[in-house]
Amino acid sequence: MRLTAHTDYALRIMLHAAMAGDDPDHLLGITAVADAHGISRNNAMKVVNELAKAGLLETVRGRHGGFRLARPADSIALGEIVRLTEPCLNLADCENCILQGQCGLTAILKRALRAFLAELDQQTLAQAAETTRLPADFLSF
Amino acid sequence: MRLTAHTDYALRIMLHAAMAGDDPDHLLGITAVADAHGISRNNAMKVVNELAKAGLLETVRGRHGGFRLARPADSIALGEIVRLTEPCLNLADCENCILQGQCGLTAILKRALRAFLAELDQQTLAQAAETTRLPADFLSF
Repeated sequence: MRLTAHTDYALRIMLHAAMAGDDPDHLLGITAVADAHGISRNNAMKVVNELAKAGLLETVRGRHGGFRLARPADSIALGEIVRLTEPCLNLADCENCILQGQCGLTAILKRALRAFLAELDQQTLAQAAETTRLPADFLSF
Repeated sequence: MRLTAHTDYALRIMLHAAMAGDDPDHLLGITAVADAHGISRNNAMKVVNELAKAGLLETVRGRHGGFRLARPADSIALGEIVRLTEPCLNLADCENCILQGQCGLTAILKRALRAFLAELDQQTLAQAAETTRLPADFLSF
């Protein structure tokens, strides 16, 4: 069972932004962050744009532009990020199943998924950042 | 977020076996079950063998061979099946992450995963079978 790469990138980018602190003058560059995580610039851009559209990141255009958290890290639940980037959250390929709509597993898997997300709703980005140790040069760009 | 196809198949095959009831003379044929679910015979065989090795299915070889549940459906938790078929359960690709071993997200994702599995541990295969409605010809082979 795995989160999509899209969600994985979103979590990393949000964590990165949280680690950068709340100095409003400090912007992270998309290319630098993408490089640090081995994500293509194109994919990083898509994720940053989606997070910005949802009000989680703030972006500044231009030569010295970049992004930062749009809200304090302790007000952002990890569940909020995962729900945003995994809109389908279908644990199984029910669409191609002959039991579709008549399967007792569907409701049970949905309950398990709710338990998973409820746990992530209890944890904030600030809590994740608190227990993260960065490589020395991680925020130097 | 999605379970692997391997787990998806295992859940369907176990549900199918549970629906077949507990008549010890009634064996399900692998080819028929694989066809019913649109799974290749090879994949179905792999899953049945793994489930049999773990003591969840009983297989009978030979021309009139097949498989059936090895234990009552109400003694098999869905969590047991998922833990068996998803041994890794790494929600994110941490191996290729520069924060590996120092990332606050890892412990949080593990807690969420535990909540997910705890919910599946509460639900038995019998409960899933009770609320499943089969197409008319589903067990006629």
